[in-house]
Amino acid sequence: MRGLFITLEGGDGAGKSTQIRNIESFFDKKGLVVVHTREPGGTPISEKLRDILLDSGNLEMHAVTEMLIYAASRAQHVRELVKPALEKGHIVVCDRFLDSSIAYQAYGRGLGDMVDIVNSYATDGLTPDITFWMDIDPKEGKERVSKMGDFDRLEMEQMDFHYKVYGGYKALSEKYPGRIKRIDASKSVEEISEDIETHLIELCSRKGL
Amino acid sequence: MRGLFITLEGGDGAGKSTQIRNIESFFDKKGLVVVHTREPGGTPISEKLRDILLDSGNLEMHAVTEMLIYAASRAQHVRELVKPALEKGHIVVCDRFLDSSIAYQAYGRGLGDMVDIVNSYATDGLTPDITFWMDIDPKEGKERVSKMGDFDRLEMEQMDFHYKVYGGYKALSEKYPGRIKRIDASKSVEEISEDIETHLIELCSRKGL
Repeated sequence: MRGLFITLEGGDGAGKSTQIRNIESFFDKKGLVVVHTREPGGTPISEKLRDILLDSGNLEMHAVTEMLIYAASRAQHVRELVKPALEKGHIVVCDRFLDSSIAYQAYGRGLGDMVDIVNSYATDGLTPDITFWMDIDPKEGKERVSKMGDFDRLEMEQMDFHYKVYGGYKALSEKYPGRIKRIDASKSVEEISEDIETHLIELCSRKGL
Repeated sequence: MRGLFITLEGGDGAGKSTQIRNIESFFDKKGLVVVHTREPGGTPISEKLRDILLDSGNLEMHAVTEMLIYAASRAQHVRELVKPALEKGHIVVCDRFLDSSIAYQAYGRGLGDMVDIVNSYATDGLTPDITFWMDIDPKEGKERVSKMGDFDRLEMEQMDFHYKVYGGYKALSEKYPGRIKRIDASKSVEEISEDIETHLIELCSRKGL
């Protein structure tokens, strides 16, 4: 028996955290164990790497360095937490995963195929069962984040970068329409929750859960 | 004008630090600027990654995570410090570089070609002009290190691991005989310094320095 691996993607300010709580509650009601985690991070070593990645003081970080630290954090997270939890039949809900690296490092930073090659080692071949892309206009997302307080190193990037990232997510959602479900994040929280729940019901029925 | 990139390799306790000081003094006498650095580390971001790598508490670190953190640290070090110094015509003397990753992660951990592929991005194609492999029997090296105090996470590994690393260095020195110079580290400090100096004189003459 293998659990389900569910990831949430999208620019900052798209409301991922709220929807993760709704997904947790959906599976809680079914009596399934839900593991809520995040990238970068999720294990002690990966969280230390997260601190380095998001530290707004590390402005001299090169794009290749950044990509490799994300991949290192993911390699540990997949092997120490995600895969063991899935093997126990748990539902793993993860705030960001591989698609973030493709959108931010391959598209945003322009690193291209290097990101796929390195991450094929990092993920050990693990792919989410379903991915919700919280689609929000980057400008609107940034406005929402700015109300929450300080920006981290990536949130501090110029709008030009965030539009490239957006283009990456769009391309990914077109490349993997079976896995990546586009969610209109400009809707109300209730409407978004309903859209996600519809997909979850379909997934559970398909997986016999 | 491009400087010289000199690396020192070998298991722990081989006397690399002492020889780095001698190499510095050799080039100081020529009136050349010497930049002494190390891996993992050498820049603020890379030193933070070093702390994670060598922390003896991080025993759950997976081999792929380890390899990717070393590569991230190297990517930053090459771009922020080593390449700019070489472009200024400086002599960069580095305690460990890419060969360490091949010996420790490809041979020691058994990760194979993955290490070369990832590091081709990390190094951006940079290869040392000369590498001194301080050849010492792993058991003798470990005895020397144990007199110095606490072991870091890699020094704590079993002898079996250190013999695999040794095999990696041996294979590398046979693959790149023009670049990697084997130095018998069981000799006296004075004899080792003389052996290294002989190679440096030859290198400088070849490079017109």
